[in-house]
Amino acid sequence: MIDPTRIRALVFDVFGTVVDWRASIAREVAQVADARGVAIDGGAFADAWRAGYQPAMRRVASGDRPWARLDVLHRENLETLLPRFGLDGLDEDERQQLNFAWHRLDPWPDSVAGLHRLKRRWPIATLSNGNVSLLVDLARHGGLPWDTVLSAELFEKYKPDLVVYRMAARLLGIADGELVLVAAHPSDLDAARDAGLMTAYVHRPLEYGHDQSAEQVAPDRFDWQARDFADLASQLGA
Amino acid sequence: MIDPTRIRALVFDVFGTVVDWRASIAREVAQVADARGVAIDGGAFADAWRAGYQPAMRRVASGDRPWARLDVLHRENLETLLPRFGLDGLDEDERQQLNFAWHRLDPWPDSVAGLHRLKRRWPIATLSNGNVSLLVDLARHGGLPWDTVLSAELFEKYKPDLVVYRMAARLLGIADGELVLVAAHPSDLDAARDAGLMTAYVHRPLEYGHDQSAEQVAPDRFDWQARDFADLASQLGA
Repeated sequence: MIDPTRIRALVFDVFGTVVDWRASIAREVAQVADARGVAIDGGAFADAWRAGYQPAMRRVASGDRPWARLDVLHRENLETLLPRFGLDGLDEDERQQLNFAWHRLDPWPDSVAGLHRLKRRWPIATLSNGNVSLLVDLARHGGLPWDTVLSAELFEKYKPDLVVYRMAARLLGIADGELVLVAAHPSDLDAARDAGLMTAYVHRPLEYGHDQSAEQVAPDRFDWQARDFADLASQLGA
Repeated sequence: MIDPTRIRALVFDVFGTVVDWRASIAREVAQVADARGVAIDGGAFADAWRAGYQPAMRRVASGDRPWARLDVLHRENLETLLPRFGLDGLDEDERQQLNFAWHRLDPWPDSVAGLHRLKRRWPIATLSNGNVSLLVDLARHGGLPWDTVLSAELFEKYKPDLVVYRMAARLLGIADGELVLVAAHPSDLDAARDAGLMTAYVHRPLEYGHDQSAEQVAPDRFDWQARDFADLASQLGA
């Protein structure tokens, strides 16, 4: 185990790691559908929307299309989903409002208290593929006490491009090896480690709903493994 | 007077507007000099250090030299100052420590309470020529409740380049005309207005010490003029 005194800052993946996107999106779309008299499975809608996320970012990463912020990718994916779920009657205002449900995701129950503990000892920031305004809105919605918001949008590259992790360290004025990425997704952490960062895996078994189990991770794959942010803060001595 | 309901976010100049750089730098350099048995005028040292700020940024803006973050410009200016004030005996650690006095500037007495009032209603962010890590450290030192830190470093252009003001609005997801710059310096506000922003001037008559008076500004030159952040919050209805 790495000595936590090496740590000079922590950055956090956000969707799934800090906030529960699935329950929040499911709730908002269910309300929209209900107002229209349409019966839908909100969780299935949320899953389908999220499923478009990686392919859309890969088209940017591969150069098939120029940089586009996540709000734009979410909106394009929403347009393909609405007819599939019987919601193609929504007008422009309703579509925009629903797209901004991604700006109103609720934190996991332990997120805010855990971040406050960690913040007392180290600077904490987002490191998310969400755009800056989305991350600012999430922080204001959920009371997330970031010292600053760092986003793929600042570099016009999406994670897992290594430049995103390294630019985060540079902007925080520290070496790559003095920065920890906290995330619930092994692929994100693998890339952070490739970029030279320390890595902390947090289990979020409910990210994909009650029917799913979180990816199993070997005990030594990352520098720390924690049940939640309270456990992480305790392990780091914060 | 502009209707404050047009406002969707506020960004703040930091040095002189939010924090009292002069008293903080004067105090730190006086401590360093005292430990060395050197007699100096801390205020004069702070003024001389600050006087190197604009010329150093202009060399970047003009293309005479590539982008360099403000920490680097501060350090270069410090090197020229130390011999003038009899402090050329400082070692590397002491120089680096003194350079980071710019990361430990105290807020003006009204700053934190005023920012909290404004933050309840709108997103608030820095918009400073200070680098990101400097601004994060200032926020942690002084308890400044920014929603995020926006810095010239993100764009590799220093204010008053208009791109800095416009990129701030873009990252916040709003139009230029929906953003307010709050600053104690008319030149900064003039550039913000040229970029399409709303402008709020805050008097900081002590920025250059007790012997100085703040620049006089015609009543209609900016959208709002305030005595301090409490007055600004009241005028905006926050």
